[in-house]
Amino acid sequence: MPQVQIVMIEGRTTEQKRKVAERITQVLNEEIGTAPDGISISFIEVPRESYARGGLLISDKQAKQGK
Amino acid sequence: MPQVQIVMIEGRTTEQKRKVAERITQVLNEEIGTAPDGISISFIEVPRESYARGGLLISDKQAKQGK
Amino acid sequence: MPQVQIVMIEGRTTEQKRKVAERITQVLNEEIGTAPDGISISFIEVPRESYARGGLLISDKQAKQGK
Amino acid sequence: MPQVQIVMIEGRTTEQKRKVAERITQVLNEEIGTAPDGISISFIEVPRESYARGGLLISDKQAKQGK
Amino acid sequence: MPQVQIVMIEGRTTEQKRKVAERITQVLNEEIGTAPDGISISFIEVPRESYARGGLLISDKQAKQGK
Amino acid sequence: MPQVQIVMIEGRTTEQKRKVAERITQVLNEEIGTAPDGISISFIEVPRESYARGGLLISDKQAKQGK
Repeated sequence: MPQVQIVMIEGRTTEQKRKVAERITQVLNEEIGTAPDGISISFIEVPRESYARGGLLISDKQAKQGK
Repeated sequence: MPQVQIVMIEGRTTEQKRKVAERITQVLNEEIGTAPDGISISFIEVPRESYARGGLLISDKQAKQGK
Repeated sequence: MPQVQIVMIEGRTTEQKRKVAERITQVLNEEIGTAPDGISISFIEVPRESYARGGLLISDKQAKQGK
Repeated sequence: MPQVQIVMIEGRTTEQKRKVAERITQVLNEEIGTAPDGISISFIEVPRESYARGGLLISDKQAKQGK
Repeated sequence: MPQVQIVMIEGRTTEQKRKVAERITQVLNEEIGTAPDGISISFIEVPRESYARGGLLISDKQAKQGK
Repeated sequence: MPQVQIVMIEGRTTEQKRKVAERITQVLNEEIGTAPDGISISFIEVPRESYARGGLLISDKQAKQGK
């Protein structure tokens, strides 16, 4: 009966989220034996200015790399 | 001193969130004895395309059911 | 279909968590109309040394107050 | 660069978590194009008394079903 | 390798988040010895109607105080 | 009024958590202007077998590196 939360940069399509939800549910069902009905998955999408790694916002990291 | 997080589908009114916050605070105060002042509650609202149960996005589930 | 997470200090009884789970589910059902079956609640319990408010660990706060 | 959090009932083996971590990382890499190195996954395991669905603790649900 | 999540009221500038991300990464590096590259920080911003303390929405609290 | 959650590998001392809580509270107060009293921080500590990066559990990563 897991609660799965995925915090990620915004901008993915519904089709991408559909696939991710479907496949992660399958992985958890196969590997830990949970019934799919008990698995909830939420995608919490944040802008590039709201996510950092290595102390650097993603928006700044991409500006640096000329993207 | 609990931190409460409620991830839910977007679209609820301020009045609904007001009631939920008030009543959950009361429940925690009565049942586990925390002072209301120490209880924080956040509502993290996501679109129907960003929440899945049973491997199916809520938006797809509702489309299937003709809603 | 909310995912509710409650981070709190450890030490509550099963009976307390039972009551909190039951009542919060009822609140969400009554106020936002979600079917109980779609509501999952997790209690994430941490020791007093792992929770701070106002910059002070709960364990230190209680030591200060002579508790 | 997603942060993935999986709150689940305790008791899974390291081998099960290894497989889940490996496969979810692969799913996110394939479906949303994130480099594996940017994907972090945490398993937050709670006892059966600390998880509820439908307003009922898992421990109570299993007692009812004679498990 | 911590996952840091900060749920806060929306409205902070990119410059504020930049500073917070930079400084929290430095704090974790200095105090617990984690390499900056392993530290991810997400800011999950919610409107004033989606955050409560003491059972009161922030939006209501501010209305009461005439702000 | 932020809720801060830090998911990290278990094993840090109370002194380390005390410093982190104190300093992060100070950072948020200085950079985003929140009163310390409104800032709650929880440390959610998980074993090395319950955290993965790049699809690899930390416990496996360290075994590989001969640590």
